[in-house]
This record gives sequence, structure tokens and C-alpha cells, in this order.
Amino acid sequence: MPEKKIGFIPLKQVTVRDSFFTPVQQVVTDVMIPYQEKVLHDEIPDIKQSHVIKNFQIAAGELNETYYGRVFQDSDLAKWLEAVAYSLTIKPDPELEKRADEIIDLIGRTQQPDGYLDTYFIAVEPEHRWQNLTDCHEMYCAGHMTEAAVAYYQATGKRKFLDICCRLCDHIDRRFGKGKITGIPGHEEIELALMRLYRATGEERYLKLASYFIDERGQDPEFFHKEAANRGWSRTDYMDKMPPSYMQNHAPVRSQRTAEGHAVRCMYLFTAAADLAAVTDDGELMEACRSVWDNMVNCRMYVTGGIGSTAYGEAFTVDYDLPNDTAYAETCAAVGVCFFARQMLEADPDSRYADVMERALYNGTISGMQLDGTKFFYINQLEANPGMPTTAYGEEEYTPQRIGWYDCACCPPNLARLMTSLGTYAWASGQDTIYSHLFIGGTARFETAGGVEIAMDSRYPWEGAADYTVNPEKDGAEFTLAIRHPGWCRGMEVSVNGERIDKDQLSAKGYWMIRRRWRRGDTVSCRMEMPPRRVYANPLVKADAGCVALMRGPVVYAFEGVDNGEELQTIRIPRESEIQAMPYDPDLLRGVVTLKVKGRKKKAGSRLYADAPAEEEEVMLTAVPYYAWCNRGLTHMRVWMQE
Amino acid sequence: MPEKKIGFIPLKQVTVRDSFFTPVQQVVTDVMIPYQEKVLHDEIPDIKQSHVIKNFQIAAGELNETYYGRVFQDSDLAKWLEAVAYSLTIKPDPELEKRADEIIDLIGRTQQPDGYLDTYFIAVEPEHRWQNLTDCHEMYCAGHMTEAAVAYYQATGKRKFLDICCRLCDHIDRRFGKGKITGIPGHEEIELALMRLYRATGEERYLKLASYFIDERGQDPEFFHKEAANRGWSRTDYMDKMPPSYMQNHAPVRSQRTAEGHAVRCMYLFTAAADLAAVTDDGELMEACRSVWDNMVNCRMYVTGGIGSTAYGEAFTVDYDLPNDTAYAETCAAVGVCFFARQMLEADPDSRYADVMERALYNGTISGMQLDGTKFFYINQLEANPGMPTTAYGEEEYTPQRIGWYDCACCPPNLARLMTSLGTYAWASGQDTIYSHLFIGGTARFETAGGVEIAMDSRYPWEGAADYTVNPEKDGAEFTLAIRHPGWCRGMEVSVNGERIDKDQLSAKGYWMIRRRWRRGDTVSCRMEMPPRRVYANPLVKADAGCVALMRGPVVYAFEGVDNGEELQTIRIPRESEIQAMPYDPDLLRGVVTLKVKGRKKKAGSRLYADAPAEEEEVMLTAVPYYAWCNRGLTHMRVWMQE
Repeated sequence: MPEKKIGFIPLKQVTVRDSFFTPVQQVVTDVMIPYQEKVLHDEIPDIKQSHVIKNFQIAAGELNETYYGRVFQDSDLAKWLEAVAYSLTIKPDPELEKRADEIIDLIGRTQQPDGYLDTYFIAVEPEHRWQNLTDCHEMYCAGHMTEAAVAYYQATGKRKFLDICCRLCDHIDRRFGKGKITGIPGHEEIELALMRLYRATGEERYLKLASYFIDERGQDPEFFHKEAANRGWSRTDYMDKMPPSYMQNHAPVRSQRTAEGHAVRCMYLFTAAADLAAVTDDGELMEACRSVWDNMVNCRMYVTGGIGSTAYGEAFTVDYDLPNDTAYAETCAAVGVCFFARQMLEADPDSRYADVMERALYNGTISGMQLDGTKFFYINQLEANPGMPTTAYGEEEYTPQRIGWYDCACCPPNLARLMTSLGTYAWASGQDTIYSHLFIGGTARFETAGGVEIAMDSRYPWEGAADYTVNPEKDGAEFTLAIRHPGWCRGMEVSVNGERIDKDQLSAKGYWMIRRRWRRGDTVSCRMEMPPRRVYANPLVKADAGCVALMRGPVVYAFEGVDNGEELQTIRIPRESEIQAMPYDPDLLRGVVTLKVKGRKKKAGSRLYADAPAEEEEVMLTAVPYYAWCNRGLTHMRVWMQE
Repeated sequence: MPEKKIGFIPLKQVTVRDSFFTPVQQVVTDVMIPYQEKVLHDEIPDIKQSHVIKNFQIAAGELNETYYGRVFQDSDLAKWLEAVAYSLTIKPDPELEKRADEIIDLIGRTQQPDGYLDTYFIAVEPEHRWQNLTDCHEMYCAGHMTEAAVAYYQATGKRKFLDICCRLCDHIDRRFGKGKITGIPGHEEIELALMRLYRATGEERYLKLASYFIDERGQDPEFFHKEAANRGWSRTDYMDKMPPSYMQNHAPVRSQRTAEGHAVRCMYLFTAAADLAAVTDDGELMEACRSVWDNMVNCRMYVTGGIGSTAYGEAFTVDYDLPNDTAYAETCAAVGVCFFARQMLEADPDSRYADVMERALYNGTISGMQLDGTKFFYINQLEANPGMPTTAYGEEEYTPQRIGWYDCACCPPNLARLMTSLGTYAWASGQDTIYSHLFIGGTARFETAGGVEIAMDSRYPWEGAADYTVNPEKDGAEFTLAIRHPGWCRGMEVSVNGERIDKDQLSAKGYWMIRRRWRRGDTVSCRMEMPPRRVYANPLVKADAGCVALMRGPVVYAFEGVDNGEELQTIRIPRESEIQAMPYDPDLLRGVVTLKVKGRKKKAGSRLYADAPAEEEEVMLTAVPYYAWCNRGLTHMRVWMQE
């Protein structure tokens, strides 16, 4: 039996050396983080202005200019600082750290004597602080600052930023709570940040405040509407009209059973709720988390791990409503899926959570960035038809090409912080068990059984193989190495020191539970059958009716016009066509395995409607990994192909 | 060879006695016209207010209230009066005629001394007359008034309304034109009305003014934007930003080759242009009409005859963009297709125009009304998924159920006037030829060859049979009776007095050209094979990929949840399934032939994505005529089914 409490590995104890993710991390550390730093300083021409650093200078009284940007602009800086913190553990960079310290100093100079910290309300509308929790995102920004501060403290040992954020959270704690002012944030984030702050500092008051915000939510579904009515001023006219479910305020959190409203908010809330439930051993709250998870995964998630199918409110809609061409599937929401999955895994190491985390990591999150790290998708469509208007199009977010920066630039830094902290998603450990959730190569050090180092080598996701070398500090130490059996895999063999182990060591929760007295240099080899496979959506998904998607291992494939000719709806993949995985091509799209399959392409005649079906011709089709689409110019794309 | 100039039959010379359309006409005369009369008088509770009659009373200075409604509210009254005029030829009603006369008296009292007539600008903003041609629809309303006046004059012989509208058009003629003020209406309509007025009065100035408006359009694509910039006030902020193509102003009309912009505007413009081109023998203008027609029919038309696929601007988009669930396909636009088709037929009697007119008449127009005539669709979707949000939904127009009245109530009276004037779409004649374009039963009287009366009996569209009895006034008169061979029909036999005539009498333009010396009582019998058939969309239509629609004769069928279970996308109709036409059922949906076909229904499991396709079970499916869908409660519906 797995222990009840499993902790994810601290980032400093893991080194990622993975043929797939190391190049992604390098793009983040070498390109994205420097690029985003320039963006924050407004040093990149011809893209949307950021103005973030200037806003801090203005709020600190050091620059006499006009504030610019969204009311939550501060969070872009926070997420960048968090990514910087993680990147310093991957690749020390004293110059970068020095510049980050300077920015932290600036943040410190911006903070008000009472601990308040939000540049918009310091610089522009100080009289309106904390009056519009619905829409003004003060706690959202505070949460991101706090997450960054915890990460920076853990990466560098420096307390300054952490202390700033403790003062900020103490300020919030003095204001909100039972017996104080009743309030919850319109956009969740502070809850999970307070949980992190609690773990980093051990201060119970942060746990209690997180618990207050989670428990207060949904107690009064009309809270935000009442706030709007009382307030007499508004930032946007639409936000105050959103239904309570948009902010997950339609019912007490522990009564919620479906994934509702703004997808990112929902993920952040339930990430915190799962954490809180695990820490406080709160079965009722965990049951809510599990139900929301199940509804999301079984009824409201794209095959890529994307969630939030509609642009209207960036939100969940109803079960099985998963349009492909107008898919929203915000990058941040897929990142949020990883957060939620990780927290569920920590509470309950069941491979079904890791399966979904893996699905999002290899598909719907990294699709948000161009391979070179300079352009980004906010929206991750599963079907692109350039030149075809849809009612959802018309704004920059809907372009079928990645762009350099966004007015609302939440996604690029969110990706940056996820990719630089990947190590902590791969491994977890308890007193007696080490979990390998993901096949991300590298080394990791655990306290388990007196100390263990494990090295893992893998060519995943291109090859279904992972080779572990186990080095306990104490030769012969007894513990369990739990290796995930991926949900997608129909045939997996595990050998210890060359000897195959028995199927009965595979637990009901999908882990090979290898318990033994480990000798230094013991090896565990995993071999996973990884044929290309057809995937079918539940027939209740209207958008995928009659269609098939291709996957291999955890990777979802896409067909691009550049390979297959445009007008991809004219092509079908007959059920009997064999799908062939091509040899790994290091020169294509930063290195990929493509799939080849014979298709039938309908010839378009001149008539719009005919009594006979169109003639078909045989065509050889090429599919590329979904995450790598749109790296070769504007083109059509489909994940779901006619069968 | 057909004569070059063919004239449609005046409504008074034709009597419709048709098993299909007579009940529709009865609904219009007995229910819709009285219902709409009550609506115009605001006597129907719980629906959108009309206020039209009151607006005229206000403008005439006879009521001291506040104007209410759209700036083009007058046109609702005009279209109702036009329908009344036609209905009086079908079913004389002295009481109705008396009330119409009284309303015409009111209109007369509203008209200004200079001929101006538009209640909004008389009552509310007299200082703003003729300053916002883009958006204020003064000429659109004038056009509808004029159409109604011509119809009323032709139906009753009374000139009062005609004289009002001559003064109105003379007022416009004094203001706009070469050497006068340059101007074109934002919403076309006046052009085709002026053509009708020209034909009714023989006054060349109306022809010239129509010609001016048509030729001036597109000369300056920035006309409307300049008008907005000069004006300094606006009614709507979006209309002034519409691209020139929205109002067909992107290029001179005679240079246009594609159907662009707001679909109704486009239809009204090209109806007038085709009329003008025929009257003035203008080959260049006719070529533009033909090209726009071809683009519309071959690339931008639903299988129901609906056009204008997007709600954004109620407009055409790009070739092959024909979504089913978010289809706009405004009822008025399908009505406009009939106008355009009729005018093309008058210029060039080619069955391809009649085929499309028939497609719209039996499908996409009458789908706009509930069978009992009390509720209406503005938007005619080809797929309805109640409970599924789409980005296009959210306004009353998007309900998947017909409603009682609309703020913008253009469609119900447009349907009323089309259905009451159907006779003139069925027949046309020249000096030497009589055309039977549609198989609508009844009798018609022609001047051809010294006078001919033809009776036609038909159970169309349920049976592929039409029986003509020809009675020339002069026994033995020689002329051609041209009977259309429907484009949908693969086998048609025509007999004269029981003797089959030869295929070589079928012209290249799709008419059986039966020329002979006709004796009184000669009969012509047509027998058309009418098996149910599968229809496939061009593979370039993304929305219909993998799908099939069913038709029988001119009738498009739809599958409703009420017959087949909801979630219709889980059902496919295998190519080999035989489609069976059931016996005519007089008790179902006012009398229909339904289709039965074996389908395969996928079972929905609990998983969202699976490696194996869903299991299927055999189901017996029922399809009903598309026009009759949504008469049995809220339900799912699809025209295009998975194959």
C-alpha cells in the first residue's frame, strides 16, 4: 500500500536531463526568460506594450509617467520571477539573479507601509483598494507574488522577497476572514499561494487564511453581484454580470461536483482545495476535488489536455461540448491542469492523475509556445482553418498563428514557470516509497530510507523505454520504487537487474510497486509497447463525430496543410489503414517521430451539392506532434480527421 | 428558342389550388395576416411591441406618445399591406380592404407636403432627414411602401396609395441623382421598388432613378464611411464601421462577381439589377448578375436554399463556409433568393434558376414559419442542439424554437407577401410561349396566342406528377408550352393527350418545349421519378464532411430528436441503407411524406476518449421535411447526418 502522504520532490533535489524536455527548458532559460525580461522592460519593438517594470517604478514614486496595462499586470512580473527562480536551479546565472534581486528591491520599495502591494491601486486609484474583489485581481496578483517569493526563497535562500510577501499576506489576513471583512477573490490564486507559503514558513495563519477563502467561496452565490451593487463604480460592465459559476461561487466548494466557469480559476481553486484537503485530511473536501476532476477529465477535456472550450468567459460549458475550430483551451488552463493533477497525485498516488498530467504536458501546454520560444498561443485550437471566419474569431487571441505578446499576457510566463519546474512533477516520495510519475530523464535525490539517488535515462516519448539506476546511500536499504504504468500503454515489461518482474507487482492504482533491499547500481528497465494508435471520442462529443485522432504514447498528432495539402476535411483515414511510426527525425521540428498513414482524399467538383459522393483518391499522409504544429508558417491543421 | 423577354403572370390572372401551398396560403390569409395586423396595432400580449400604427399616428400628429421601435419600423406595415394586397386577390375580404384603406389614409396624412414619408424622421429627428443613408433606412422603407402601393393598386385598382408613393419617389428623385445630391441607400430595396413602379406607371423617371442607384453603388467604396465622418452623429457605432462589401459598395455593381455582404441587401440589389438589365438589354450588368448568382448557388448556399451563413452582419462570408449549427440563413434572405431567381428567370428562362427558386420555396423560406402561422424563425439553422452553448447564441434570434415576434420583424411579413404572391412565381409567358416553372397546381390565364387558360393539377411535392389541361380561346392556336424538367429529377416522362413525347423536345435550358396547335381540352401529363435520394456536399464544405442529407423531389429532410432520440450525431446512415418513402400521412405536420431508413447508433460509454470505436446498434430512423421541423416541441435536429 502506498503511504497516504506523498511529497513532491523539492526542485533542488532533481536534475532534468531529458532528450525531450531539456531542449524545452533550454528554450525557456535561454530564450523565453530573457525575451520576457525584455518585454517587461518594454525593450522589444512591435509587440504589445507590457509596462510592468515602469508600473512598479511609478508606484514606488520613482517614475513620473502614466500607468499602463491590465489591472493584473503585476502578475506577469511575478510569474517571470517565479520562472527565474526555477531557472536558477537548472542553470545558475549570477547576472540574472542580480537583476532579479534589483527587481525585488523595487518591489520592496513599492510595497506600502501596511504591507499592501498592487501597483495599479497604489499608483492610480488608491481610494478603491479592496473594493472590487470581483474584477480587480488584487489577491490574484498577491498570490502570484507569493508563489514567486516562495520559489525564489527556495532557489536562492534569500528571504527578502519572502518577507515582502509575508507582510502582504499578513495585510490580507488582517483584513479578511471570520470576524473580519467577508471577502473572496474573483480570480482564485491566493489560496494555492497561501498553501505554498504555509509549507515554506510553517506559519499556521496562512493555512487558516487559505482555508477561509476556500470555505467562504459559494456561501453566498450573490456575493460578487452584491459587491458590484454596493460599490457604485466598475472596471468592466460584463464582469459584474457574470453568473456566480463563472467564479466557482455558485455553491460551497465542498459541494461542487462539476468543473464550472472560468477554467483557469477553477484549476487554481481546486489545486488549493486538493492541497488543503490532503494537509488537513479533509475527506469531504477531497471528495469534491475528485468529483470535479472526474467531471473535467471524463466530460470536458480535449484530447490534448486542454480545457475551457468556449471563448465566452474562457470557460467550461457543458459536458461533451468540445468544438475543435472554436476551441479556446487556454494555455494557462492546461498549465492549471498540471497543477491540479500534481496536487491530486500528492494526495492519492493514482496513475490516472499522472496520465492526465502527462497528456497536458506533452500536448496542450507546450503547444502554447513556438519551438524557438519567441511566440505564443493563448488559445489552442484543435482545428485551424486560416481564412475561414468563425463567429469566435476577430480578436488577436484567435489568430491561427502564435504571436509575440498579448495584452493579457498570462500564458507565456505561466508556461515558463511550469517548464522550469518540471522536475518536481516527475517524482515524489514518502518515508518508504519513491514514485516515478513521469518518464522525464535525469537524476533525483530522496530522503527515503536514509537517502537514495536515482538516475533515469529515457528517450520518451519517442521510445517506450526508461532505465533506472538506483543508488541507496545505505547499501541494502529497503523501500518501494513505484513506477507508473501509463494508461495509454497496452504492454509494459519491467525488469530488475535484467530479470522480469511479475504482473502482480502492478498495483490497482497503476504503479509497478518494486519493493526490495536495494544495492547500489541496481537497475530497473521498463519497456513499453508504443505503436501508433487510433483514438475515438465519446459519441456524445458532437464535434468529433465520425472522426479519429492519432496518438503514439502520450503524444497527440495533428495533420497540417503544409504536409498534406490544405482543406483537410476532404481527407479521411479509413479504419483499415495501417499507421506507421517513422524513425526519429532530429532535424524536423526540434526532433520528432512523425506518423505516416494512407488516406483517401475527396476530389472537390464544381457543384455545391451532388447526388453521388465525391470521388476519392489515395494519398499518403503525414502527422506531426500536435504541440509542434504551426512552426512552418500559416497552414490548416486538424487533430480529428474524418475516418 | 425561347423568346428573349418573358413576363411573369400578373397575380390576378392566376389562381393557386395546390395541395401543398393552398394550406400555406390559408394559414397566411386566415392566421398570419390577421395576427400581424393585431401585432401592428399592439393587440397581442406578451410579445415584442410593434408600435407601427402608433408611430404613424404620432407622425401624423394624431397621437401624443413617444415613438418606439427600429428606425425601419415602417417597413413592417408596408410588407403587411403588400401581403394584404396579394391576399385580396386570393380571398376577397371587404372588411380587411376597408381597414387597409384606412391605414392608407393614415399614411397619406403622415406624408409631408414635399412628399417625404418616414415616421421616425417626421416624429423624432426631422433635422436629420437623409443625412444617414448608411443606417437609417429611409429609402429602404420608401421601397417597401412603394412595393406595397404597386401591389395594392394592381389588386384593387385604387390609386391613392400608388399616388402617395409616386410623390414619395418623386421627392427622392428631386433630391438624388446625377447633378443632384450623390447618394445610395445603405440597405437596398428602393431599386427593385422603383423598377416595379416603372412597370406599373410606365414613368421613365423611375427607371432612371433605379438605374442611378444601381450604377452609383460601388463608385466610391468609401461613400458610407465618408458620410459617417461628415455627419457628426450616429445611430449605431458598428454600422459605420462595416466594410464597404457589407453594403455591396466595394465595387461597381456591374464589376461584382461574388455574393458579398449582408445577404438580404445583396438579394434585393441583384433582383433590381437583373430586372434593369433585362429591361434595358444591358449585357454587362446581366453578366454581373449571372456571376453573382453562380457564386451564390455554387459556393455559398445551404442545401435548403438559405444564404448568409454568419450572424455577424447577417452576411455571406467566404466560399464553402456553411456551418450548420451556427447557420444564420435568415428567412428574409431565402425570400430574397426567390425574388432574384424570378428576375433571372424573366431575363433568361433557364431551369437552373427555377430549381433554386423551388429549393428555397419548399425548404428555407417556409421553415421560417410554424405550421399554424403564429411563430417564426428569423434564423434557419440546419442543426439544432438545444442546451449546447455556441458562441453565436445568446440573442433572441438564436433560439432553437420559433417565437411570436421580433424586435426586428422583417421576416414574418416578408414570408406573408411571398406566400400570397406565389402564383406569379409559377408561371410566365411571352408572345409565343407559356412557361410552367413550378408545379404549383391551379389555373392561369395568358394573353399568349390570343388567350389561353391552363389548369394544372398536382400532388407535388409528395408525388412526381403534374397534369395540365390546355384551353386556348382560339381552338388550334399555335404556341409552345414549356414545362420545367426539375434538376433533381433523373427520369421524367411527358405525354400529350396520352402520347409520350420525345426526349429531343427537352431543351438545353431544361424545359420540355411542347409546340403544337392546341385544341381545347388537350392534356399534358408529366410523370417524374421521385425516389428518396442521398445528397452530398462539395468536400470543400467543412461542416458537412463525412455527412449525407436526404431529399425527395425538391424537399430536404431533417432528423429530429423527437423521432430518433436526441444526440443525433451519434447516429449514422450507412451508405448501403435503403431509404423508404412512407405513404403520405395527412395527419402528421399538416400532411407529409416521411422517410424511413436504417441507421447505426453509437453507444456512448463513460470514457471521453477510447482506443476503440464505440459499439453501434441498428436503429430505424424517421426523417421529416425540413420546413416542418420544430413543430413538436424543443428538440435536436440535423439535416446533415453522419454517413
